[in-house]
Amino acid sequence: MTFPVVGMVGGGQLARMTHEAGIPLGLRFKLLSDTPQDSAAQVVNDVVVGDYRDLDTLRDFARGCDVITFDHEHVPIEHLRALEADGIPVRPGPDALVHAQDKGVMRARLTELGAPCPRHRVVTGPADVAAFATEVGGFPVILKTVRGGYDGKGVWVVRSEEEAEEPFRAGVPVLAEEKVDFVRELAANIVRSPHGQAVAYPVVESRQVDGVCDTVIAPAPGLPDELAGEAQLLALRIAAELGVVGHLAVELFETRDGRILVNELAMRPHNSGHWTQDGAITSQFANHVRAVLDLPLGDPRPRAPWTVMCNVLGGDYPDMYAAYLHCMARDPQLKIHMYGKDVKPGRKVGHVNTYGDDLDDVLERARHAAGYLRGTITE
Amino acid sequence: MTFPVVGMVGGGQLARMTHEAGIPLGLRFKLLSDTPQDSAAQVVNDVVVGDYRDLDTLRDFARGCDVITFDHEHVPIEHLRALEADGIPVRPGPDALVHAQDKGVMRARLTELGAPCPRHRVVTGPADVAAFATEVGGFPVILKTVRGGYDGKGVWVVRSEEEAEEPFRAGVPVLAEEKVDFVRELAANIVRSPHGQAVAYPVVESRQVDGVCDTVIAPAPGLPDELAGEAQLLALRIAAELGVVGHLAVELFETRDGRILVNELAMRPHNSGHWTQDGAITSQFANHVRAVLDLPLGDPRPRAPWTVMCNVLGGDYPDMYAAYLHCMARDPQLKIHMYGKDVKPGRKVGHVNTYGDDLDDVLERARHAAGYLRGTITE
Repeated sequence: MTFPVVGMVGGGQLARMTHEAGIPLGLRFKLLSDTPQDSAAQVVNDVVVGDYRDLDTLRDFARGCDVITFDHEHVPIEHLRALEADGIPVRPGPDALVHAQDKGVMRARLTELGAPCPRHRVVTGPADVAAFATEVGGFPVILKTVRGGYDGKGVWVVRSEEEAEEPFRAGVPVLAEEKVDFVRELAANIVRSPHGQAVAYPVVESRQVDGVCDTVIAPAPGLPDELAGEAQLLALRIAAELGVVGHLAVELFETRDGRILVNELAMRPHNSGHWTQDGAITSQFANHVRAVLDLPLGDPRPRAPWTVMCNVLGGDYPDMYAAYLHCMARDPQLKIHMYGKDVKPGRKVGHVNTYGDDLDDVLERARHAAGYLRGTITE
Repeated sequence: MTFPVVGMVGGGQLARMTHEAGIPLGLRFKLLSDTPQDSAAQVVNDVVVGDYRDLDTLRDFARGCDVITFDHEHVPIEHLRALEADGIPVRPGPDALVHAQDKGVMRARLTELGAPCPRHRVVTGPADVAAFATEVGGFPVILKTVRGGYDGKGVWVVRSEEEAEEPFRAGVPVLAEEKVDFVRELAANIVRSPHGQAVAYPVVESRQVDGVCDTVIAPAPGLPDELAGEAQLLALRIAAELGVVGHLAVELFETRDGRILVNELAMRPHNSGHWTQDGAITSQFANHVRAVLDLPLGDPRPRAPWTVMCNVLGGDYPDMYAAYLHCMARDPQLKIHMYGKDVKPGRKVGHVNTYGDDLDDVLERARHAAGYLRGTITE
């Protein structure tokens, strides 16, 4: 059969789970991985070990792939343009991906589109940060490196001009944003195909601990329908205007006065969508791969009233196997997703999904399992 | 992490789908495959190409595996005993597997256990078949080679002593069975772990066309609770008595007079359990792999009132991709499972699962998709 070959750049857990979702679809998967031990490299047959920053490596890798897609957003834009010039479909394409790579470009474009954003501007140094603070009503303000940040890295909450010095030390452009008075964080996840078909998942609540996603609740409890619809339409519009193909996560703040503001964009399967593996008719991974191949998209609706995802972070014990066994015994409905990664304190090494009719129960089961696997709960 | 390595002998679709189920469990998978193009070999990282009938190949393969399990039941029993003597856990073990390899041994043991079976005996030639026919009320009778049959191969319905000649031509032992007056076929699927934990899936109805599984409906419509419970208990008892570890499919006849009789046993994930991938909390593949690793088993209960599986057989057109795209567009809830196999007429190349509240709708959607993929439905 002439089923297509999907070329995935990056060997992390998102690639691993996309491969898993591609198996029933009958797809061939080819992986460009930094090492043979990467999370996805352990489970994919056709693995090329190489550096995605090297154009020749990318070109060699792309030969024989019907489409190139990504586990992360770090491939240089000029390399993606070169692949496109070679005739390889790159999805999402460089014109979209630049908005996920560069927060300055993202903010400028969203503002141009009238998408609600925190007040922001690129700042030149600590004195400029102080000026920005005055414009937005005073410190604290948020500083972000425009490139390369993730999971709370590359982000600072600064309370004074003195504290604003550190972000500038790396010599990269810095974006200042007002500190939003939010009640919680939400994510609007959508998937869009090249010919413009799109599906929207239920808007979820995303809870962070120390800047890292800890818990996702689908759908976001108590979110008014109008606000949920507004968030979905916003994500669909951003995807269409930016030409996103595949999964787009729009991370949002829900403000105390009932508005939503865009926090971040991610153009790949996203942690806020892991619940869909067990909680939706079609997972974000299956729909991402369907989208990048321009296949019709699958139904994004939930299968249960509530689904909860909790990340499993590495704790003090390098071996989780005994805890994993315990969690399976305690909760036969628990869905565990391990990434095959070595345990390091604070590192995302897996997640758990639970679902059911009673949110309190679903939340407790997910939290208990994640805590037990990490070692912060011992009974 | 010291997560275990599962050694899977055989590269067919059952191995492919077991690997898929093992990815979220964080397991390492090692495959012994006949060719690098086999269904599972396309999607597993660690593939050894070799002949499972060769003991040295098996021994080399087993090195570094924490357990050996199977895609099929054809590995010689003496080789499995040799692996066990080497200290490698083999699950299911040879003492259980012999009952799935040899229908004569299976019938003798089940009869000894008092499990309800069609009347049967090993026959020596056409005249003996005629004598057996007289004992059970006349022709037609069923003849089966005691080893190597599957999907209707190695099975004959004979109407006379003359017709009984063919099965003896291969020179292998032949088992005669009465032709049961059944209203339908059922399957009771259970999973059992080495320490004896077991889970039972809902009993399903299995419809065959030309001796090949065509449609599975979960649960079996209109099956009285007592009969369903009896079937589940029978499967659990067979598994315990025979020492089965992993998935056991007990294929059953439901007779016109409301009894169940054992037709066949399979000690591996089974076509009658494919519906569990999308229709149960824990799939047969996930539970099989949990069982062979002696991990606690997952909840086998259904997630929807009705789930239907239809096999996708190869038709006249070698390329299914256009049909596959059409099916996705027609039914965004459809779950397609393709095996990466070349299309040959009548060959199982995939299956589809549908689920929902309305059995007629669920059945129609699965049948349409399977027929469209095969090419027997064109609109």
